[in-house]
Amino acid sequence: MAALLSDKLRALLDGPVFIDLATIQPDGSPQVSPVWVKRDGDDILVSTTVDRRKYENLRRDPRVTVLAQPADSPYDYAEIRGTAETTTEGGQHLIDELSLKYTGKKYAEFNPVADQDAERVVVRIRPRKVVGSL
Amino acid sequence: MAALLSDKLRALLDGPVFIDLATIQPDGSPQVSPVWVKRDGDDILVSTTVDRRKYENLRRDPRVTVLAQPADSPYDYAEIRGTAETTTEGGQHLIDELSLKYTGKKYAEFNPVADQDAERVVVRIRPRKVVGSL
Repeated sequence: MAALLSDKLRALLDGPVFIDLATIQPDGSPQVSPVWVKRDGDDILVSTTVDRRKYENLRRDPRVTVLAQPADSPYDYAEIRGTAETTTEGGQHLIDELSLKYTGKKYAEFNPVADQDAERVVVRIRPRKVVGSL
Repeated sequence: MAALLSDKLRALLDGPVFIDLATIQPDGSPQVSPVWVKRDGDDILVSTTVDRRKYENLRRDPRVTVLAQPADSPYDYAEIRGTAETTTEGGQHLIDELSLKYTGKKYAEFNPVADQDAERVVVRIRPRKVVGSL
């Protein structure tokens, strides 16, 4: 069963908010990192590369949790639990789109060492449950 | 081995920053929630209650990860991995102290239904490793 995102949560994700993405380490402990985000319907898209720990974790265990919290209204937040699918298809396009959204620049311009990145990955998170007040 | 917090990270935690605390659910998936925080030396103190999922998770598996990110400098963040100890001793004192820090009010004044809270718990997180640029 997929969960739907509220209008408020959609609006938050459509703005330049950083979300925190939690994955599970090989030893079962949590890993958390802040990421840029794009909303696609009720799915949440995040960019990573094939050599990041996040990616390895997601390939082993696709269960993730995302925390989205408005900077100007921190008591209204959403914890989104779901499952992640990964693909390298469209990976470069997504990071360029995210970079424009968050920095106003192409990714190669924002990050001068972008050309040293390993292959880019699209992480598509399908929400299963949303907890919180958004 | 305990990890030390940098001066920048200490300063961030001493201000009214919300941190995201990740714990492990019974099924092994991650749970994340935003919390108030107090620094005590290199330890991180968080308040919860005995009936919260967070507390149940911590009692079962004390491995936690904390994400601290300055609102005005989101690319400087710290992921703090550590182990949590819990006690009800000093639980009411901590929530009152945190409420004053974050809201300028006593907790009972900030949260009118505070008297319906279950017993308050102090979560003391001992950092083992700090990742990131803070």
